[in-house]
Amino acid sequence: MGLFSKEIGTMDDLFVHQLQDIYYAEKRIVRALPDMIAKSNSRELKSAFESHLGQTKNHVIRLEQVFEMHGLEPEAVKCPAIDGIIKEADEVGSEVADKNVLDAALIASAQAVEHYEMTRYGTLVAWANALGRDDCARILQETLEEEKVADNKLTSIAENSINRMAA
Amino acid sequence: MGLFSKEIGTMDDLFVHQLQDIYYAEKRIVRALPDMIAKSNSRELKSAFESHLGQTKNHVIRLEQVFEMHGLEPEAVKCPAIDGIIKEADEVGSEVADKNVLDAALIASAQAVEHYEMTRYGTLVAWANALGRDDCARILQETLEEEKVADNKLTSIAENSINRMAA
Repeated sequence: MGLFSKEIGTMDDLFVHQLQDIYYAEKRIVRALPDMIAKSNSRELKSAFESHLGQTKNHVIRLEQVFEMHGLEPEAVKCPAIDGIIKEADEVGSEVADKNVLDAALIASAQAVEHYEMTRYGTLVAWANALGRDDCARILQETLEEEKVADNKLTSIAENSINRMAA
Repeated sequence: MGLFSKEIGTMDDLFVHQLQDIYYAEKRIVRALPDMIAKSNSRELKSAFESHLGQTKNHVIRLEQVFEMHGLEPEAVKCPAIDGIIKEADEVGSEVADKNVLDAALIASAQAVEHYEMTRYGTLVAWANALGRDDCARILQETLEEEKVADNKLTSIAENSINRMAA
């Protein structure tokens, strides 16, 4: 949220603000994933990140649909949370030398991103329902489900191979 | 992670780094919660935050036990992720005037914090297990379960009362 954004007066304003926040976050993630793909060593992990990049681009499009359904132009507000999560991912990634340990670190960073998205989409779905916007809630729920699946897939890759190889 | 922290060479280093990160985060949350308690309007929400403050102080103590079991002094490294999440919570909170809408915003912010903790403790449990430290994993798992319960409780408060009152 920028210093010059408008005050949040109603629940609808809060919903729109949260949409703008996650719109910024999704676009930030689209920019961050190629670097994570490049750094990852395991073919399975690289492929999971590549598939998630495709999904994330689609999440951006879905958010633009929700803005449109709400009669608004898509707009992003700066989101210090995702900036902090990605800054931390970059810092940790740059300090790991061993390629298996780096894969474990990359998974942890990606799961921190997934969890941020899961909490925001969960909130947005609940708020859309409270506002009687079941149409918006349905679209947001689709993305929420994809984030959960992506997170579970990363857990499975970590626990079935990467963590053991790294340890 | 600070600029002057040591390079992460092994999975054990990565585990310790993540412990230091969440140790910083838990102590940051202990400092943030009293402000959220003061700002919250619903008695049920205030009481949930108060109870979580007590739990969070205990999570700090549990982390100190894990450091000790690992033969290390407790140490915190700067965690840009939690700083960003709390910065965003403060910014949004300061822009909401209506007390019911503010309660909805506070719940969303607290759930973003919970989700950050859930992902980090989930990772730490998996890494402790991979390193053969089932003793550390057990303690970390206790906190993970409490974070999940706290998150579900906030969802329930939001969906059963606050979101409707705010909308």
